Amino acid sequence: MGEAEAAIDDGGLILVSHRGPVQFSRADDGARSAERGGGGLVTALSSLAGQLGEARWVCAALTDEDAAVVAEHDGASFDLDEHLDEHLGPEGGDTDDGLRLRMVTVDDDAHEAFYSIIANPLLWFVQHELWDRPDAPDLTRREHDAFEHGYAVVNRRFAEVVAEEVEEVAAAGGRATVMVHDYHFYLLAALVRERCPDVFLHHFVHIPWPQPDAWRVLPPPMREAVFTGLLGNDVVAFHTERFARNFLLGCQELLGLDVDLDERTVAVDGRTVAARAYPVSIDPEELGERATSAEVGEHERALWGLRRDYLILRVDRTDPSKNIVRGFRAFDLLLRDHPELAERVTFLALLQPSRQDVEEYADYTQAIRRVVADVNLEHGTADWQPIDLRLEENLDQAVAAYLVFDVLVVNAIVDGMNLVAKEAVVLNRREGVLALSETTGAYEELGDFAVTLYPFDVAQQAEALYQALTMGADERRERSQGAARWVRDHDVSAWLHAQLADIAALRGA
Amino acid sequence: MGEAEAAIDDGGLILVSHRGPVQFSRADDGARSAERGGGGLVTALSSLAGQLGEARWVCAALTDEDAAVVAEHDGASFDLDEHLDEHLGPEGGDTDDGLRLRMVTVDDDAHEAFYSIIANPLLWFVQHELWDRPDAPDLTRREHDAFEHGYAVVNRRFAEVVAEEVEEVAAAGGRATVMVHDYHFYLLAALVRERCPDVFLHHFVHIPWPQPDAWRVLPPPMREAVFTGLLGNDVVAFHTERFARNFLLGCQELLGLDVDLDERTVAVDGRTVAARAYPVSIDPEELGERATSAEVGEHERALWGLRRDYLILRVDRTDPSKNIVRGFRAFDLLLRDHPELAERVTFLALLQPSRQDVEEYADYTQAIRRVVADVNLEHGTADWQPIDLRLEENLDQAVAAYLVFDVLVVNAIVDGMNLVAKEAVVLNRREGVLALSETTGAYEELGDFAVTLYPFDVAQQAEALYQALTMGADERRERSQGAARWVRDHDVSAWLHAQLADIAALRGA
Repeated sequence: MGEAEAAIDDGGLILVSHRGPVQFSRADDGARSAERGGGGLVTALSSLAGQLGEARWVCAALTDEDAAVVAEHDGASFDLDEHLDEHLGPEGGDTDDGLRLRMVTVDDDAHEAFYSIIANPLLWFVQHELWDRPDAPDLTRREHDAFEHGYAVVNRRFAEVVAEEVEEVAAAGGRATVMVHDYHFYLLAALVRERCPDVFLHHFVHIPWPQPDAWRVLPPPMREAVFTGLLGNDVVAFHTERFARNFLLGCQELLGLDVDLDERTVAVDGRTVAARAYPVSIDPEELGERATSAEVGEHERALWGLRRDYLILRVDRTDPSKNIVRGFRAFDLLLRDHPELAERVTFLALLQPSRQDVEEYADYTQAIRRVVADVNLEHGTADWQPIDLRLEENLDQAVAAYLVFDVLVVNAIVDGMNLVAKEAVVLNRREGVLALSETTGAYEELGDFAVTLYPFDVAQQAEALYQALTMGADERRERSQGAARWVRDHDVSAWLHAQLADIAALRGA
Repeated sequence: MGEAEAAIDDGGLILVSHRGPVQFSRADDGARSAERGGGGLVTALSSLAGQLGEARWVCAALTDEDAAVVAEHDGASFDLDEHLDEHLGPEGGDTDDGLRLRMVTVDDDAHEAFYSIIANPLLWFVQHELWDRPDAPDLTRREHDAFEHGYAVVNRRFAEVVAEEVEEVAAAGGRATVMVHDYHFYLLAALVRERCPDVFLHHFVHIPWPQPDAWRVLPPPMREAVFTGLLGNDVVAFHTERFARNFLLGCQELLGLDVDLDERTVAVDGRTVAARAYPVSIDPEELGERATSAEVGEHERALWGLRRDYLILRVDRTDPSKNIVRGFRAFDLLLRDHPELAERVTFLALLQPSRQDVEEYADYTQAIRRVVADVNLEHGTADWQPIDLRLEENLDQAVAAYLVFDVLVVNAIVDGMNLVAKEAVVLNRREGVLALSETTGAYEELGDFAVTLYPFDVAQQAEALYQALTMGADERRERSQGAARWVRDHDVSAWLHAQLADIAALRGA
């Protein structure tokens, strides 16, 4: 346990996130199984929780079997390791020492409104500025009701549960630190603060925080609830200084609060709330191990077969914010401008279908398929397909592709961080070039090592791709090594420790 | 001549705008005619120019006959009154005492690229944030070329002409004050400053200035040219404090310049540039006179015939920024929620077709016709058409409508000022209620007298319309009188004098 962890370890850490570390399900034979949450974040938080005594994790009960587990414990928290050992055998629960899980059941209708009307797409679209504003959104009673009877209800329910956990910690003589995650729980902190004025509350926002006027898409009852809810925290944390600044500017412009842009604080109700930037990162060791697996090796061999002189790669969800269509248009332009590249370069696009029940996402996937068909028809030859589009989720294949690309394209319109960029530069073995949009969170750290992309400028992206493909060996090496070194020096554990150190300092003050 | 005018009247004022005070044309019989530029701005500037000795006005030669007039004067400036007297008889030129006109001819291709690719729609769409960002714009070589060989060329040409005029003033021992207008000439000031370091340059931006990230739609070569061009000025002027602040935030975030948000200044190249807000206004006397004309009277009688218990009015160009479709959706909702309003309220929409050669505008006009047809089909009866849509330009009819409305709807997504709101509240005779979007420039002045509209919230707009229609007589009177008084006290002449006073003070410093 580090100093920072020790300083806050006087009674417990309470993590709050919509998805928790495990999800339970029941097979046809009646056996319970548990699937670990994917992604570096859950891993990192689990590892943190494991390091601290009495860590608690509050998350939603999302499956019927989750609800059954909740019922078995009368709604109370339970020791995750013990439960997994009991139900899945000893190999089930060996990584969550001391973690108590508190799963929260929510009324189905309220959860549906919370999740499918407000969190996605409304907040997601506002924060990524994806609306075609002359046409959408049309906020109607449906959205007002979903906010009031869905988003607010779920937040209140979680706030009650968190407050109960905080009070348990206090009853045992401790002072809890609550770390809340993401755009599902913007209203939570103020509600917990009301009931537990002395608690330390920290909220991490994992998606972009746009400039104040973007919030004017929402009427005051919604946008003010978001801001005042977050201002219940002691720290509101973001991936970049830009997002933290945007949050402060929003407090100033939309709520008329007194903000100190240099100190990065806002004064509210006699308290001081800090806005801070902690760029999330990856676990290079864990990723490196994965890259040595047999499955990845198999994919890698197949990709070597695909690669000709150059392999351009992108790995994304099919989200409109990822700017996939313009990336292919830029590639089209590259092939037009440089006929010498014909049959020598392949653009491998590994795209996980995302939210296909949302109209904008389904339409966007169709637009991707359309432009790929057009480019392949225009430039393809008997034995060369310029774009290799794979619409599937296959992490091993993505890891293999990270090893072999020559150019990685991340041209997002806007992105909270973009961990693909960090994973790829750490793993790549070809001194591949990172072509990175200026509007990704990752750009604040990796911009100096990357070829910059301006996401709306197709002509510039085509030129940048050419620059990346033809970059001299020395420059490639220097940049790729620099980027990999940066990520190794600023891994996910550094991300967590920076937050804990600030929490310890602020709690002490 | 007021004090402020006197203080800057040491050699001349040079006005610069794309459209000038007159446009010449030639009839089939070979006779030259001159049409005065419409709108309060040209009137106000003409009147200002008339008050100052040696005022000059630089504008584009837009017609063949304009070019003929230029040729007759060998490209030099000429006395506008004299020219009009000579060609049109004495009634032609009685309002422009002492104004010298300098019309600038520009290569047709360069002008077309400048106007139809960059100024409209690119800059207009960026500044009104109208892009459907996952899909548009796609900046290609066409846009880069249009910026370089169109927008920049026209700005350079105008800068040369302005510099010549400034040098003429200097040769006569004066120090010119240049007042540049709008989004056509963002690059001009820096170019003039280079050649004439001591000139006083003032630029008024008549459309919204969005927050810094909105400018990231343009790549650095364009957005930095816009900002550094404007920073050649001594004063950059906007309609609202919000726009001025957004400009300063842009200087800080996009150019890394040292900005003082309290003093509203930015330091650049050893100079200090001020960002200031001067809300443009109208000429209530002139408008009042127009309202007494026979043509307006005739329209007024017709509109009294149309009106039942209530008349809701909107007067707009068919621009996607005006949010016309959502306004009708809100009206639809109002009629659904309040069946008692059936056959008692008519929504008169006076819409001037705008830029129908631009795809987004043509599509938007179709969307307007579609929603009007739907609402009228749904709610209309044998002798009642809920929405009366008139797609035409008819100023007399609009003025008549200002007299008789019960509720004026201005629900723009964003608007630099919105003079319709100011004209309407000054003329209205029914203590009509102004329903005004929070994101119009006018809201900064008239918000306290208005029912606020949140432009993306159809449900809220429906409720606000109901509130406006049913407001008690005392409150209506207080608000409508307050708004009218505000506009009378802050007319276009006050707008000009505030700018001239600041110019005088800054020139003196």
